[in-house]
Amino acid sequence: MKGEIISVGSELLLGQIVNTNARFLSEQLAELGISVFFHTVVGDNPERLLQAIGIAEKRSDLIVFTGGLGPTKDDVTKEVLSSHLGVPLVIDEASLKAIEDYFRRSGRPFAENNRKQALVLRGAEILPNDAGMAPGMFLSASGKSYLLLPGPPAEMETMFLRYGKPLLAGRSGRIESRVLRFFGIGEAELEKKLEDLIEKQSNPTIAPLADEGEVSIRLTASHAVKAEREKMLDSAEKKILERVGPFFYGYGGTTIFREMGERLRKKGWTLAAAESLTGGMFQSHVSAVPGASAWFKGGVVTYQTETKTEVLNVKRETVSTFGVVSGPCAKEMAENVRRLFRTDVGISFTGVAGPDPLEGKDPGLAYIGLSVKGRETEVFAVHLIGNRDTVRLRSAKHGAWAVFRAAATDPER
Amino acid sequence: MKGEIISVGSELLLGQIVNTNARFLSEQLAELGISVFFHTVVGDNPERLLQAIGIAEKRSDLIVFTGGLGPTKDDVTKEVLSSHLGVPLVIDEASLKAIEDYFRRSGRPFAENNRKQALVLRGAEILPNDAGMAPGMFLSASGKSYLLLPGPPAEMETMFLRYGKPLLAGRSGRIESRVLRFFGIGEAELEKKLEDLIEKQSNPTIAPLADEGEVSIRLTASHAVKAEREKMLDSAEKKILERVGPFFYGYGGTTIFREMGERLRKKGWTLAAAESLTGGMFQSHVSAVPGASAWFKGGVVTYQTETKTEVLNVKRETVSTFGVVSGPCAKEMAENVRRLFRTDVGISFTGVAGPDPLEGKDPGLAYIGLSVKGRETEVFAVHLIGNRDTVRLRSAKHGAWAVFRAAATDPER
Repeated sequence: MKGEIISVGSELLLGQIVNTNARFLSEQLAELGISVFFHTVVGDNPERLLQAIGIAEKRSDLIVFTGGLGPTKDDVTKEVLSSHLGVPLVIDEASLKAIEDYFRRSGRPFAENNRKQALVLRGAEILPNDAGMAPGMFLSASGKSYLLLPGPPAEMETMFLRYGKPLLAGRSGRIESRVLRFFGIGEAELEKKLEDLIEKQSNPTIAPLADEGEVSIRLTASHAVKAEREKMLDSAEKKILERVGPFFYGYGGTTIFREMGERLRKKGWTLAAAESLTGGMFQSHVSAVPGASAWFKGGVVTYQTETKTEVLNVKRETVSTFGVVSGPCAKEMAENVRRLFRTDVGISFTGVAGPDPLEGKDPGLAYIGLSVKGRETEVFAVHLIGNRDTVRLRSAKHGAWAVFRAAATDPER
Repeated sequence: MKGEIISVGSELLLGQIVNTNARFLSEQLAELGISVFFHTVVGDNPERLLQAIGIAEKRSDLIVFTGGLGPTKDDVTKEVLSSHLGVPLVIDEASLKAIEDYFRRSGRPFAENNRKQALVLRGAEILPNDAGMAPGMFLSASGKSYLLLPGPPAEMETMFLRYGKPLLAGRSGRIESRVLRFFGIGEAELEKKLEDLIEKQSNPTIAPLADEGEVSIRLTASHAVKAEREKMLDSAEKKILERVGPFFYGYGGTTIFREMGERLRKKGWTLAAAESLTGGMFQSHVSAVPGASAWFKGGVVTYQTETKTEVLNVKRETVSTFGVVSGPCAKEMAENVRRLFRTDVGISFTGVAGPDPLEGKDPGLAYIGLSVKGRETEVFAVHLIGNRDTVRLRSAKHGAWAVFRAAATDPER
């Protein structure tokens, strides 16, 4: 099955936003075994959109649209498709009710043009929008399939994963992918350790990809029989983990924060964090994990020096002797936040996010303290490359990786 | 002048990377007054690339390519264009020398396939690659222009800014954009208030865009004289702000967190936050603002109920009478964190991120407490739609908006 993605929105053509939707959908469609040969971006212009649809119909079986479903006059996707296919737009009562409920709950007045969002192509399968208002649609006509999704990434992703993907899943597929995720090893090093495998192996293919301080490997097996595909993936995974297993932390779309939480949950341990460098980013990622309240108690952000001593009781002489960007400061922060929140584990972050040096220390230097009940406190010094945001994010991930290892049931890892 | 961008690379169609090149070039071309009506992404496949070129030539004057200039067999952009235009490829001696120098400096052996990178379309203007090896090219033929740029963003951006942009600058008209950012008003409501302006006005154009709980408006003026463009933008901005000024918070790529910080800085106020619902996300966004340490002291994340009473001294009877998702709890959190961190402003977040209800309250309900020295504490109840992540993000933005207004120098706003 050949698919292509048409992203509708002048903001993309003006360079106001980047087309992350096309990336997300390409990856998802690849997982479903749907080959994506083209992406097109077109503005909020009926004539040019119609042109793009005509081109796409000549070369693809499935056309996935993102954007142009909103309440404004600029939103034209379903209108253009309606006149192109000769399928009228009708009000979907369930969607209209959801939109009205939304306004009622939010206490905002219902602007009449929001009714437009409840208009759908007659006969289309409706995909509810659990993260917004405009519903999605799936329609087949003259041997082509059309999937209409909203433009805002949070709405589009939720809708696709909950409703679009299951709908398409039955329609394709002879390939299967598995993603293995690693931390604490660089892409070049990982690739070197697996060089012969990557070169010799063509089915499954082994494709490493670096992403924000971590590396993943995508295995893709092609076989008509599902059980065979699974067997091929298992065997490749085994060979890979024999070499780089100590850096492996999980599968697919998981995160190091989620896997850390899973280990804490299994141990029955609770966690608190003290953040300076990362300014709340670690805890923000941790609390984004569904069910985090079972093992994450909370923490402090001690962004200014005085808050470290006043709120977190770091000793004044520690700060004056070693500075706030130091192992001894990280150690006390981790121990003290663990005591303050009465948890099993305390983790701390202090360092230099940049762009300017701090206390004469270079941007990218971070100290991560790890205090676990009944164990000696550990401090990790890491040197990170990148701008302010990436230094913070990579530090947060390093912290999660430290907790992940500390909470291993197998003491070997 | 009509332009379009063709990005060549199978990694884009597999969703392994996001097409940031198209965003960058769109923004750059818009600045030059070149209208971009389409983006296309196509794989490393000669036949499909040729097809995409044929389509682009029918509708655009300038075609900008990114990718496919490298040393491997997969890199086919200039080869396809060479046979399509009937223009042979020839070795560019200056580029070849630069490539050989590059290998000499890096101490790596010169692999013979790197000679391929020095092949250029005969008669093309050569764009040096100061950040890599493959040179770019600019060529006009049969009334169409072709600009070939490398795929890696660092190479492409350097080459475009140093050589591509000056080359194109002479060839186009002049447009200028200004973005106005708003909070606390929906896209549909904003558009209704400005309906007549949006419809009547064609220069500057007025284009609203919704994004994660906020709305922006892009004004685009077209005129040969810069001073005239500025005047036109000023006049349109004035008309818009007369109607929706109370929701305006800043220009261009700014954020509500940054503008909040700017007002705090001007007031000489300091800020602390107490987060339950948002789990550190508010503080993470706040500390991402450069220079935040001047006015942001820190805060607490009290994710579990007991930490609210134990660490933040929220009264036990407040929790037992009203619950943690309540106005009274938000009020105490804001006041207590302000006291604990000795700041001028304390902000707090408690609510239900979802997907499950909490204390019988629906996901999306959030209470935001705002405590300012010498003022009555305020509590805002907001009802947000979306998934867990968007509820958290929109709550954090609402908090920033509350502080932004509280720190207004003009008490009317």
